[in-house]
Parts: sequence; structure tokens; C-alpha cells
Amino acid sequence: MPSEFDLIRRHFTRPSLHTDLAVGDDAALVRVAADMQLAVTTDTLVAGTHFFPDTAPRDLGWKTLAVNLSDLAAMGAAPRWATLAITLPGADEKWLAAFADGFFDCANRYGVDIVGGDTTRGPLAMTVTLFGEVPAGAAITRAGGRPGDDLWISGQPGLAALGLAHLQGRARLADASRALAALHRPTPRLELGLALRGLAHAMLDVSDGLVGDLGHLCEHSALGATLDATALPTAALRETGADEAFARRCLLTGGDDYELLFAAPPAARDAIAALARRLDLPVFRIGQLTAHAGPVLLREADGGLHVPGTSSYDHFMPASRNPNGSAMA
Amino acid sequence: MPSEFDLIRRHFTRPSLHTDLAVGDDAALVRVAADMQLAVTTDTLVAGTHFFPDTAPRDLGWKTLAVNLSDLAAMGAAPRWATLAITLPGADEKWLAAFADGFFDCANRYGVDIVGGDTTRGPLAMTVTLFGEVPAGAAITRAGGRPGDDLWISGQPGLAALGLAHLQGRARLADASRALAALHRPTPRLELGLALRGLAHAMLDVSDGLVGDLGHLCEHSALGATLDATALPTAALRETGADEAFARRCLLTGGDDYELLFAAPPAARDAIAALARRLDLPVFRIGQLTAHAGPVLLREADGGLHVPGTSSYDHFMPASRNPNGSAMA
Repeated sequence: MPSEFDLIRRHFTRPSLHTDLAVGDDAALVRVAADMQLAVTTDTLVAGTHFFPDTAPRDLGWKTLAVNLSDLAAMGAAPRWATLAITLPGADEKWLAAFADGFFDCANRYGVDIVGGDTTRGPLAMTVTLFGEVPAGAAITRAGGRPGDDLWISGQPGLAALGLAHLQGRARLADASRALAALHRPTPRLELGLALRGLAHAMLDVSDGLVGDLGHLCEHSALGATLDATALPTAALRETGADEAFARRCLLTGGDDYELLFAAPPAARDAIAALARRLDLPVFRIGQLTAHAGPVLLREADGGLHVPGTSSYDHFMPASRNPNGSAMA
Repeated sequence: MPSEFDLIRRHFTRPSLHTDLAVGDDAALVRVAADMQLAVTTDTLVAGTHFFPDTAPRDLGWKTLAVNLSDLAAMGAAPRWATLAITLPGADEKWLAAFADGFFDCANRYGVDIVGGDTTRGPLAMTVTLFGEVPAGAAITRAGGRPGDDLWISGQPGLAALGLAHLQGRARLADASRALAALHRPTPRLELGLALRGLAHAMLDVSDGLVGDLGHLCEHSALGATLDATALPTAALRETGADEAFARRCLLTGGDDYELLFAAPPAARDAIAALARRLDLPVFRIGQLTAHAGPVLLREADGGLHVPGTSSYDHFMPASRNPNGSAMA
């Protein structure tokens, strides 16, 4: 059986782009450019909680890094370096090779150097800490929203939740391919996040459900928000074969989207539309920030306002209390 | 049951010393001082592999950060920021509060800001990624050793392994208190690591066993090494009641020491002795680096040379093949 050192050397040692001293010493050494802030984020994926244990390792490798990249995108920061801590039940080299392939697919696509790692034995889980650069003062936080800002969402929220529902037999999709791709190989919206510097007032990535995450943005900005039901992009969800009510529920409360939710002034509408065309990435204007702090409201087609179910996925919430009914989201 | 957000807020949100934007957004923002390199390290502790599941949570909190601090010490880097990813079987708030107390005992002692975290549900494990600063070019790597350098070790290697043997019933110690303290509350040798900049040519921290880790230093420096059996500091180990042979085995092959092993020229002996007095920390000159790459040799009192058992702890090595006989080291 190959040793831990052999495994790390074989699968996780790759040429680096912008690292002074990479994997292999007690610590890595990197240099942050002058006038930059370092943006740091970390996320853990645990088998049985965040993914099915039989998830294809190549997909899992991609997703492990992608979910962290999404956090940097949401700050308008450019990714540079990552550490990977992986806990494995045993030394399954074929699994590890496929995982590493997926992980480096994603790292190479977005220019990330792996600068440290730890491989340990135990129940399957992985933690990535990702760090990147953003010009000092230019980061887009959750706290900068202003009353009257438009609320925008990128891509197709709800698609990953549909994919999960399909896998769990809770939905029967005529065509599950896009939904499964969104679940297994999410695309971090890095180009969009970087381009929104100077345009967006506040931003976060939707990982725990649109309504719940919008609530976090509102809380940090000390504002309220109204979503317009008629503006919610359910058409692509319905193309999978899902019915309207289920599609809307996935869109509002499903997790694992990794789309960017951002607030920007109405004066930025044309610039945002032009940006979306340039990136070939749809963005949808779905509501507004409002002056008074309070729960997120949903305005129905008939003008009626109500508080939609908040189902931000909480890892300590028993499944029975989790409104979207999924312990795997 | 409190939610994940409540738990993080309650236990892991503390005032920060040198952080622009701390826990709570998609990423934290920090600034690295000009002319500094950022040193980065990560370590995972898994219940059942690295610690007994019933380890006192306050000790575990301390150790989770301390083992990472030891890696920065071994580079001569000053710690600044850390992320903590913790996976818990459930929301045991009393356990979490004690863990956080121990973790922040250590963070406050060494001036570390917690800038990010993730709390997930699953088998108990924690991963810390630690960031620090070192003046550009001043880091002490594993690769700088030169033939003829003295080899030094700090503190008391082998003590933690004795503590583990005591807990496992493999050793009967008359006084286990120091050994258990070394196992549960290791002291990262940060002051020593920083002060060795300009004195030591090469350094690492001993976490997997002295002989095995010295082998890594030799490999990176493309040199060999000879340890002098008569210079090994077994006296303090024997004071616990352990016999000479067992004490020596713990010293040479036990894990979890978190002492600094460093190579320095003979001309630095006086400066190193003065430093040890100033820090009130014993250091022992235990051997030399030799010109030709090869296995670490041990010179016995009678002048005979042999290759000691290498038992660097490997997380994928079956216990039966692990020469120090411990799956928990």
C-alpha cells in the first residue's frame, strides 16, 4: 500500500503558477501583491451530509474547490492559492487519482495553486481553504446594500436542488442532465464577481437557498427586501419537466446553487445587462432592497405580499425541521 | 437546538487584532505587510485517528491550533490568522463551548485572529489552516542544511509518546503528569522558531517521530545525518518511571512531539545556548548532518553505527506495520 507521502506526491504535487515555496515543507510561502487585501474562505464537504458517498470522485474533486471559489467570486476577489485537507477511510488510489483529476480540472481552469495539504485516515470528508487577492477597499461585502437597489441573481438558481430531488426520487424529471450537472459540477461565477466591482453594492453566493441567503444580505445591510414572483426565472427549471410549484420552491429554497446574488443601483442596469451578454451568462432582476429591516417578502402576480418559507440549509437542523426536506442539500 | 449560525456567532466570534473583515461574510479580508511572505499550513485532527473521542474538549481546542502553530514556528514565521473547519456529530453546545475556550486560549496566547470557519455535521474532526508572516527570504525551510551542521532538538521529544503509551496501558508511569500535558497541551515553539532566523540553516517540527522527520530534513537538504545515542535527552523521560529502552524508543520514534529539530553551524553554538537560556527552554545538540545522502544513522556509546527503526507515523500505514505500534499517535 502506498504511504501517505507517496500518495500526496503522486496526486497532489503539480507545477505552481504564483507560489514561492509549494507543498512539501512545514508551510508554503506566497507573496501577496502590494495594495491588495487577502480574501480567505474555507468550506468542508462531509460524506453523507453534503454529498452521497458514491458520488463520482472526479465530480467531487471539482465541487470541493468550486464551492470555495464561489465564495471568493462573491467578494469580487481573484483566487490564487488553496490548501486541501482530505480524510479518507483508506488508501483507495483509483478513487484518489480521480478526485485529484477533478480538483485540478477546477484549479487549472481558475489559476489556483495548491500550496498545502493534509491526508488523514477517517470518515470521508474534505476541507478547502482558499485565498485570493482583491484591491484594497474594492471587495464587495454583504453589508453595502442601499434602499432601492435592484436585486439580481446569476445563472439558474434551483437547478441543483432539482437535480438532488431527482436523485432522491422526489421529482421525476424528463431531462435531468442540466440539473445533475448543476449539482455535481457547479460553475463558480468568478468572471461575473470580478466584473461587478464598482457596479454592485453588496453580494453573496447562494449556497443555502435564495431566500435564506438574501436574508443574510439584508441582515448585514440592515435592510429589507421584496422579491417579485413574476420575475423569478422558473422557465428553465420547468423545461426539465418539473411542475411550476416545485420549480419555484427549488428556486427559492434549494441549496447548492453557487449563483451570485447581488444588489446594484438602478443606474447600473444597462451596464449589468451588457456584462451578462459579454459573459454569455444570464442574470435576472428579481426584486429590490427596501428601507426597513425585516423578513424577505415575496410579491405575487396579484400584488399580494407574503413571507416565503425560509429554508436556509442548516447543518444542525434535523431533517424533520428542514423545510426543503433534504438532509443532503 | 441552536442553529449553526447561532453556534458560530456565540462561540467563535471574538474581537480581532489585525483583520480588516472577520468572520461573517463570504470571505475574510486581511492585509499582509509589505516585504513579507505569507506562510500557510494546514492540519486535520480526526477522532479515533489523532485523538481519543473522549479527549477533554478544552485540551482538544488548544491542540487543534497548537499543532498548526508548530508548523509556522518551524518556518520562523509569525502567526496571524486562522480558519477553523469543525465537523461535529451533533450540536453539543457544552462540548463546543469548552473546545472554543481551549482554541481561543491558544489563539490569544499567540496573537492569532480567527478569520473564517465552517461548522458541519458528521464524524468529529477539525481542520485548521493557519497563516503567518515572515520577512521575504528569511523563512527557515527543510532544504537549507549543510554538511557538518549540528543537529539540535528543543524541549523534550518522546514525552507525548510516553503519555499516549500510559493512556493505552502500554507503559506504567510513576508520574504521568508531564507526559500527559505534553500529549494534550503541546507548546508550539514559536519564540524559538522566530529567534532562529539567521542562526539555523534548516528546520522542521517533529510531529511524526524524530528519526522519520529528520529523514525528511535530510531528503530536502540532500544530505545524511548521524545521531549520537549518548546525547539523546532521555533523563527527563526516565523521571516518569519509564525504562531506558522504552524512553529511547519514544524519543526516536514517538509522534506528537511538536518540538523543533534544526540544523545550525558549529559557530552558532554559543548563540543557541544563550537563546535557550533566554527562553528558558532546553535545547539538545544530538548529532550532525553528513555530506552523503542516506538513511539516518545512530552512533551508539561504543561507537557502533546502525540504522534505527524509522517509524514516522503514516496515516495510511496499517497498525500492524506501524513500528511504534500506535494507531492513535
